[in-house]
Amino acid sequence: MIMGFDVGGTNARGLLVDPATGATVDDDRTSSDGTGPVLLEKLVTMTRDLVDRNGVELTGVGLAIAGLASSRGTVHYSPNLPEIVEFAIGPELEKRVGVPVAVVNDASSGAWAEAKYGAGRGCADMAFVALGTGIGTGFVVDGRLLEGANGFAGEAGHMVIALDGPVHHTGQRGPWEYFASGTALGRLGREAAAAGLFEAGITLAGAPDQITGFHVAEALRAGDAHAAVVFDAFCRFVAIGITNLVLVLDPSRVIIGGGLTDIGEPLRSGVDDWLQQVLLGADHRPQVEVVLAELGSEAGALGAALVVLEDPRHNR
Amino acid sequence: MIMGFDVGGTNARGLLVDPATGATVDDDRTSSDGTGPVLLEKLVTMTRDLVDRNGVELTGVGLAIAGLASSRGTVHYSPNLPEIVEFAIGPELEKRVGVPVAVVNDASSGAWAEAKYGAGRGCADMAFVALGTGIGTGFVVDGRLLEGANGFAGEAGHMVIALDGPVHHTGQRGPWEYFASGTALGRLGREAAAAGLFEAGITLAGAPDQITGFHVAEALRAGDAHAAVVFDAFCRFVAIGITNLVLVLDPSRVIIGGGLTDIGEPLRSGVDDWLQQVLLGADHRPQVEVVLAELGSEAGALGAALVVLEDPRHNR
Repeated sequence: MIMGFDVGGTNARGLLVDPATGATVDDDRTSSDGTGPVLLEKLVTMTRDLVDRNGVELTGVGLAIAGLASSRGTVHYSPNLPEIVEFAIGPELEKRVGVPVAVVNDASSGAWAEAKYGAGRGCADMAFVALGTGIGTGFVVDGRLLEGANGFAGEAGHMVIALDGPVHHTGQRGPWEYFASGTALGRLGREAAAAGLFEAGITLAGAPDQITGFHVAEALRAGDAHAAVVFDAFCRFVAIGITNLVLVLDPSRVIIGGGLTDIGEPLRSGVDDWLQQVLLGADHRPQVEVVLAELGSEAGALGAALVVLEDPRHNR
Repeated sequence: MIMGFDVGGTNARGLLVDPATGATVDDDRTSSDGTGPVLLEKLVTMTRDLVDRNGVELTGVGLAIAGLASSRGTVHYSPNLPEIVEFAIGPELEKRVGVPVAVVNDASSGAWAEAKYGAGRGCADMAFVALGTGIGTGFVVDGRLLEGANGFAGEAGHMVIALDGPVHHTGQRGPWEYFASGTALGRLGREAAAAGLFEAGITLAGAPDQITGFHVAEALRAGDAHAAVVFDAFCRFVAIGITNLVLVLDPSRVIIGGGLTDIGEPLRSGVDDWLQQVLLGADHRPQVEVVLAELGSEAGALGAALVVLEDPRHNR
């Protein structure tokens, strides 16, 4: 059996996974606060508990972390988990559990889970785009997870798409994430409301400045015409970033994941329609498929477990 | 021996290459005008001539072409070679010469040549950025040429970096190429001259609207302070596109090639300095090396020859 963890800013989710099928055998959850050594202790304890109570043998552990996770097992930058930055969580955990440990960015692990057991099955070249508070991305190239020289590949949410655009909380001007995350969907809704063009949003949220992406999605579902205009603008922004990924990587499929997939088909078709319009040379190439993720919020932990089976470079 | 061709809008350059060393044994050149069948005949003739006069055995042919070159051997989009679009040049040539033929984009083949015998030696993850009339790019990922699902990977010159920016000749708004090609360097020079801030350029070119990238480079070399300002703005634009590539791919090295490498070290250091400033998280990752290409204008033909040795997917 293999363990997969998804360590977020609040919780660490752990899955005990059958490597032959990708099926979850057991699972648990703990808080992720505290220093590196404290988190390490929690991960060791949860691993031992799950292994013991299922009476199985452990062969590897994968750790998905939101941030710049080096393939050598150290997190170099993580606004959500500041206390574990520069702590060698991968090598330390490996010492304690005695099996190989892989540390990987959470969007890359989500991409790998979708590739193996989700919407990416059978597709050798694909891009996974998780739309949530920010934008996380992960890529599969020629059947393998794209990790890059340091394990930092897949930070495409920070790509600049408006070089003189607004300053994002990262300090950059005009990154993709500023325009096309769930946070951005809320801002577009607030802007429309302030312009008198989103009454339904004000009704749902209580006040114009309380509108979030959730309210835009809610109004869209109810058939509100103003919400549809806001959402169309949002889908264009998502598509522009995806065109950049298509031009660089030439995937045959793009998988949209993250919290915004709750919107469902309107999100998929909205992005798909804009992608065909804004992708240069779209008439001269096979149409890029746009599909929704299938695995939901456990993809990160599952993918981390599956990565440890594949990649001999981790922690080396 | 292997043949490598670089088929441009005007000429087709052919190299007979020793696959063991990458050394050019013989070479020739012909015009590239005419329809697909006419070009095919010229390539067959040149191949036979070079093979016969050197008394060698041919084991493969690579074709580098500016445009969307499918890994199945057909060019789907090529403004420079409109007459061969949708002509199955790869499979047709393969029938005539009786050895495997690979068709590849010219910037990708340049990247591969640099990876094997140029500035990319020993580097498993690298980005090649050719700055000329436009911007061509090619990528090596985990020691292999990144081709993508269709062979179309590496079209990063068309990445959008200014979504509300000026309309480029491709019809897109604000692609990287609009800001950071040799053509763009000339436009920046003309804009500076029109604003009264580039006298040296006017002197070199004869008139403000005659200034090209060449004149900016010439004035820069002569130590002109206004040219240095124009060039610094240009290097920032180059660096912004490179940050997008680094965020997606995480290369450890970026190789700058194309005609603008004649500028030399000021180009390398100008881009390098801006890259460290604009790359998000630059303090948290190993510094990306920025180096100049080593192989010059024959990299395209050489790389095409080397690709045919590597990739079993071509023409399949």
